[in-house]
Amino acid sequence: MSNTQHFLNEQARVDSAAIAPMTGSRKLHVEGSRPDIRVPFREIALSPTTTTDGVEHNPPLLVYDTSGPYTDPDAEIDLRRGLPALRQTWIDERDDTDWLDGPSSGYGRRRANDPMLAPLRFELQRSPRRARPGKDGKAGNVTQLYYARQGIVTPEMEFIAIRENLRRQARCSTYTGSEEVERILDHQHPGQGFGARLPEEITPEFVRDEVAAGRAIIPCNINHPESEPMIIGRNFLVKINGNLGNSAVTSSIEDEVDKMTWGIRWGSDTIMDLSTGQNIHETREWIIRNAPVPVGTVPIYQALEKVNGVAQDLTWEVFRDTLIEQAEQGVDYFTIHAGVLLRYVPLTAKRVTGIVSRGGSIMAKWCLYHHQESFLYTHFEEICEICKQYDIAFSLGDGLRPGSVADANDAAQFAELETLGELTRIAWKHDVQVMVEGPGHVPMHLIKENMDKQLAECDEAPFYTLGPLTTDIAPGYDHITSGIGAAMIGWYGCAMLCYVTPKEHLGLPNKDDVKTGIITYKIAAHAADLAKGHPAAQRRDNALSKARFEFRWEDQFNLGLDPDTAREYHDETLPKDSAKVAHFCSMCGPKFCSMKISQEVRDHVSNNAIKDGTQGETRDEASDRRLDDDSKAVKKGMEEQAQAFRDAGARLYQQV
Amino acid sequence: MSNTQHFLNEQARVDSAAIAPMTGSRKLHVEGSRPDIRVPFREIALSPTTTTDGVEHNPPLLVYDTSGPYTDPDAEIDLRRGLPALRQTWIDERDDTDWLDGPSSGYGRRRANDPMLAPLRFELQRSPRRARPGKDGKAGNVTQLYYARQGIVTPEMEFIAIRENLRRQARCSTYTGSEEVERILDHQHPGQGFGARLPEEITPEFVRDEVAAGRAIIPCNINHPESEPMIIGRNFLVKINGNLGNSAVTSSIEDEVDKMTWGIRWGSDTIMDLSTGQNIHETREWIIRNAPVPVGTVPIYQALEKVNGVAQDLTWEVFRDTLIEQAEQGVDYFTIHAGVLLRYVPLTAKRVTGIVSRGGSIMAKWCLYHHQESFLYTHFEEICEICKQYDIAFSLGDGLRPGSVADANDAAQFAELETLGELTRIAWKHDVQVMVEGPGHVPMHLIKENMDKQLAECDEAPFYTLGPLTTDIAPGYDHITSGIGAAMIGWYGCAMLCYVTPKEHLGLPNKDDVKTGIITYKIAAHAADLAKGHPAAQRRDNALSKARFEFRWEDQFNLGLDPDTAREYHDETLPKDSAKVAHFCSMCGPKFCSMKISQEVRDHVSNNAIKDGTQGETRDEASDRRLDDDSKAVKKGMEEQAQAFRDAGARLYQQV
Repeated sequence: MSNTQHFLNEQARVDSAAIAPMTGSRKLHVEGSRPDIRVPFREIALSPTTTTDGVEHNPPLLVYDTSGPYTDPDAEIDLRRGLPALRQTWIDERDDTDWLDGPSSGYGRRRANDPMLAPLRFELQRSPRRARPGKDGKAGNVTQLYYARQGIVTPEMEFIAIRENLRRQARCSTYTGSEEVERILDHQHPGQGFGARLPEEITPEFVRDEVAAGRAIIPCNINHPESEPMIIGRNFLVKINGNLGNSAVTSSIEDEVDKMTWGIRWGSDTIMDLSTGQNIHETREWIIRNAPVPVGTVPIYQALEKVNGVAQDLTWEVFRDTLIEQAEQGVDYFTIHAGVLLRYVPLTAKRVTGIVSRGGSIMAKWCLYHHQESFLYTHFEEICEICKQYDIAFSLGDGLRPGSVADANDAAQFAELETLGELTRIAWKHDVQVMVEGPGHVPMHLIKENMDKQLAECDEAPFYTLGPLTTDIAPGYDHITSGIGAAMIGWYGCAMLCYVTPKEHLGLPNKDDVKTGIITYKIAAHAADLAKGHPAAQRRDNALSKARFEFRWEDQFNLGLDPDTAREYHDETLPKDSAKVAHFCSMCGPKFCSMKISQEVRDHVSNNAIKDGTQGETRDEASDRRLDDDSKAVKKGMEEQAQAFRDAGARLYQQV
Repeated sequence: MSNTQHFLNEQARVDSAAIAPMTGSRKLHVEGSRPDIRVPFREIALSPTTTTDGVEHNPPLLVYDTSGPYTDPDAEIDLRRGLPALRQTWIDERDDTDWLDGPSSGYGRRRANDPMLAPLRFELQRSPRRARPGKDGKAGNVTQLYYARQGIVTPEMEFIAIRENLRRQARCSTYTGSEEVERILDHQHPGQGFGARLPEEITPEFVRDEVAAGRAIIPCNINHPESEPMIIGRNFLVKINGNLGNSAVTSSIEDEVDKMTWGIRWGSDTIMDLSTGQNIHETREWIIRNAPVPVGTVPIYQALEKVNGVAQDLTWEVFRDTLIEQAEQGVDYFTIHAGVLLRYVPLTAKRVTGIVSRGGSIMAKWCLYHHQESFLYTHFEEICEICKQYDIAFSLGDGLRPGSVADANDAAQFAELETLGELTRIAWKHDVQVMVEGPGHVPMHLIKENMDKQLAECDEAPFYTLGPLTTDIAPGYDHITSGIGAAMIGWYGCAMLCYVTPKEHLGLPNKDDVKTGIITYKIAAHAADLAKGHPAAQRRDNALSKARFEFRWEDQFNLGLDPDTAREYHDETLPKDSAKVAHFCSMCGPKFCSMKISQEVRDHVSNNAIKDGTQGETRDEASDRRLDDDSKAVKKGMEEQAQAFRDAGARLYQQV
C-alpha cells in the first residue's frame, strides 16, 4: 500500500486481499421476478458427517453477502472503471429523472475542470441525474419512500426482500439435508423483540410497507447505481456501518479505497467516508464508484474545509453547494447535525466531555459565534428539497451525544433527540427517508432508555447508533467496550450499528483495525438478531455448532465470521493437516475432549435411551417435561443401554 | 520462553514482562487495624490540567490491584522460593490447625519421594496444615464461613473490606482534588442492581455478614497463605477468573507460571489451573507457591490422568486421594461436577452439542458405564468434610452447560442447576463456602433467566459463569462473543466471570491470548459494576474521560486497562513525543477535533452562560429542567457570551 497522498489514475489497483475467494465459499445469485434482479449470496459448502451408519449430507449454508462483485470470480474488477451500474435500468424505467450536463454545484464544476487534479481524478463517463421537476416547476421526488407511499414496489424493494429472506432461500429444495439435520439447523429460540415484527417470510410488499411507514430506509441515491439495494430497519437483519476516511495527518486515497473493499469483504453493510484531509472530493468519487454498498458522509466536514477550517465562516450557501456536489457524486445518506440548537449548547457546559461529535462541535461554535440558530435547522426544509431529488436519506446526527459514561442520557442529549423527532416529521412531509443517530458512551443500564426514547420521539424511524461504549476505561479496546453496548441496543431495536475500531480515541484505523471493528460489529448485530428471534439467524449458529461437535474443523472455520483467523489460531498449536481431522484440539488434548466423550455418550447410549423413553419429543417438549419424566421407560432404556455401553467395550479415546 | 516440558528448578526465572513497573503507577499499601494487614493498591499519578486560570491539580487514582508483589519494586521475586506467606500469622493465631508431617495423600507422598522429579519439583520447606480435629475426634472446621457464622471477623475479612473500599480510599485527604474536580470524579449514575445491595462503605462487618449468609465467598485454603484475600459475591466488585494449564499436546510448567504472572498483572482475580498434560502435580505446586490470587482446579482432570484416561476406571478412592493431594498443596477452590446425575444424561442426547464440559462428559460416561449415580454426588458429604478441614470453597461445576446457543436453557441444564442448589445447601450445612458455575452459550435474551434461576435455586450463593457466549459463529473472537454475555450477566448479578480467550474452541491460549482474555473480561466486569451502580466504579471512567477531554494523553493511557496498547496505537500514527501534548490525534486531525472545539466552546462561552443562568445546579437538576429552562437568565448570559466569543477573535485552531 502506498503512503503517498496521491492515487494516480493509471496506477489504481484493487487490493488483492479483497478479491481473494473466501475459502470453502462460492458466490451465487438468486434471481427475482426479472433477470436483472440478481441477489448476491455467499454459499458455504460443508463436508458430510461420518456416522456409524454411513455418511450424512450437510446442506450448504447461504449467508448474506455485502462484498459485491469483488468476491465473484466471474467479475472483472478494475477500480478505474468502477463497478457496473446494476440499478441503472430500474432508474431509467421510472422515467422521472433528467441527465444533467455535468455537475451542477459550483465546487463540483471547479474540481471537474481543474487540470491539476487529472492524475487523481476518477474518470466518470456518466453525467449526474436529478429528479425531473414537476410541470409546476417544483422539485421532483424520486425517493423510495415516495414510491412506497404510492403503493409502488420497486425492483430495489424486491431485491431486498430476497436478500433478507435468508431462511426461505436456505430451504430451497436443492439445499436441504435429512430430516434430522434440518431439525438441528431449524432450531430457533423464540426471541424477545421489544415490539419488533419479524415475519417468517419477507415479501416485497412487506418491504414497501415498512418503508412507507418510515420504519425502514433504503439508502440509494440515483447517482450511485452501482450499489446493491439494502434496507435499514428494526424489522430486518441488524446492519452495521464501517467508517473510513483520511484526515489531515494521515492516509491516502488508495488506503481509503482499500479499507472500503476490505470492510465490505468482512460484512460492512454501509460505509461512511469521513474524510477531512486532502482531496475529499476525489477520494469520495473513487470510493462511491467502487462501492457496492451505500455510502454516507457528513457534509459539514467538507464544507468546513472549504472555509479553511473556520467554523464561524460557514454559510448556508457553502453548505448547500456541498450537498449538491455530494448528491451528484452519489452519496446515499447525509449525516446532518440539525438538532444542535443554540439553546442546547449551554446544557453541555458542565459535562465531563462537552461536545464530542465533530459536526456537533462545529455547529455549536457557529451558533455561539453568530448567536443564531444553526443554518442546518433553519434551512432544513431546503435540505429536504435537495435530498428528495436524488433520494438521499437523512442520518440525523447526534451532535450532542455523550462522550463519556458520566454524560450519558443527560439533558443536552435528550433535548437534541426531541428535535431530531421534529426533524424526522419534517423530512417525512417531503417523503425523504430518515434514520436517527444515537450515542455514544452509555453504561449498560441506561442503554434501553435511549432506544425507547428514540422510538417514541422519532415515531419509529430507524435508529443508528455508535456503539454505545459501556465504559470509558479501555482505550485500545473500544471495539469491545462498544460491541457490548451495540449488541444490546441492537437487541432492543436499533437498526444499524456504527462500528468502533480498536483505534477509537487514539488514531485513524488501518486495514487491520477496520477488519477487527467489522467482525466485532457483525458479532453484535448477529447476537442482536438471535435475541430478537430473527427467523434466519440461528441457522448459522446451529450449522457451526454441529460442525464443531462433529470435528469438521474446516467447516467450523468456514462457517465463522473470519475463517482465516480461526484457521490460523488452530494451526498455531496443531499445524499439521492431519490435525484438522483430529477429534480434539490442543486446548484439551485427546483424552479430555468433552466433545469427543460426549459424542461417544450420545452414540452409544443416549440415542437409544431417548428413543425408547421419549421418542418423538422435541427439545421444547423435553424442556417442559423436566425431571418429572424420570419415567419407567427412560429407566428401562438406560439400563439396557448401560449394558450395551459396557458391551461396546473397546477403548473409546482416539490416540494421538 | 522455553518450549521444553521441563522447568528445571535451578533455572526458574520470573517473566521479566510480569515484573516491569506499570507506567505512571506506583504500588502502595493501606494498613488495617494491625500492621500485618497491608492491602495492596495501585496508584495512578496524573498530571495537572492547564487552564486559563492556571494549573489545576488532578488527584491520583487508586485502583484495585491483583498483581501481588510482582509489581512492587521493593519485593524480591524468586520463583524458586515462592511468595511470602502473608496469611501465615493469621492462620497461626486462630490456633485451630495442625502441621502435618508431610503430604497425607498417597499420591502426594509418592511425588514428594520420587527422586526423578527433583529437577522439576518446587522445594517447599513448609509442611501442609489441616484443621485440628475436635475432642470428639470429628474433623475440624477452619472455613471463613464457619468463622463468619460465629460472628468472628477475620483479618481476611478486614483486608477485603479495605480492598473493596476503593472509593473511601480514593477520598483520603491527601488524594483529593479541587471541589470542581471532585464533582467530576464523584459523578455516579444510580445503578440498576436487580436486588444487589452495594453499600457506600464496605465494613469488615458487612463482609462477615455476606459470607455468613452464603452470598459471598473468600477462597483461601490454609495451605495457600501466600494469597491476598479477595471476595466473590454480587454485593462486591465483579471478579474475573483466568484459566491456564497445559494439555497433553502443548505447553510446559514454565509457560503456565508465566501465564499466571501475566494474567494477574492485567487483572485476573483468580486463576484456574486446568492442566491435563504432564506433571500436573508439579505444575500446580509452582503456580500456587507463586500465586497471590486464589487458585482453583478441577480435580477430576488429574484423577482421570491417574487412571490413564479411562473414565469408567475412576473411583471414589482415587478421587478422594486427589482432593487431599490438592488440598494440601493449597488449592483454594474445587470445581466439582456433582450435579451430573445419571437421569440427566439422556436429556442431552438430542442436543446440538451434547455435553461440552470436560468434567461433565467424564462423569456422564462414568455414570452410564456403571449405571450408577456419580460418586461425586453420592460422596458429596465426604467431600465437604475434606473441604472444611482446609477451607476449600466449592465451585459447583455445570457439567451440562450448553455448548451452543441452540442448547441454551434446556432441560438438562436447568435440571442440573436444581441439583446444584441441593448441593449448595448440603455444603452450607458443613460450613463449606460455595459458588455455582454457569453457562456456556446463551443468546442475550435468555441470559437473565439463568441468573434469576440460579439465585432462586441456589439461595443466592455466588454465580460464576463462563461467558456466556452470545453466538456461536465467531471462532477466533469468542472473547468478544462471550464478553457481551459476561457483561450482561455481571450486571444481572453474576459474581465472577470466567474469561474466554480468542483461542476458545481452537487451541490452548498463549500469553497474548491470556492478556486479551483478561482485558476483555475486565471490561465486562467493570461495565457490570457501572450498571449495578457500584459506588467506586465510575470514578475511573470519569478520571479517564477528563484526561481525554483535556488532551492529557499520558494520563489517558495510564488510566486505561492496558496503557501499553493504548500508547502503541496512538504512536502508530503520531509517534513523536510532541504529539502526546497535541490537542488532537490522527483520527480527526487538528481542525476537526471535537474535543478541542468543544473545549473552546466551554471555555469561552458556556461556563459563563451557565454560571449566570444556572449556577449551582447539579447535572441531575439540569437534566430535570430540560428545555423548559430556556430562561431569560440563560438567554442573557448567552448573548453576552456570544459577544465575548466574537471578541476572543483570534484563530482558535491549533496548527500542526
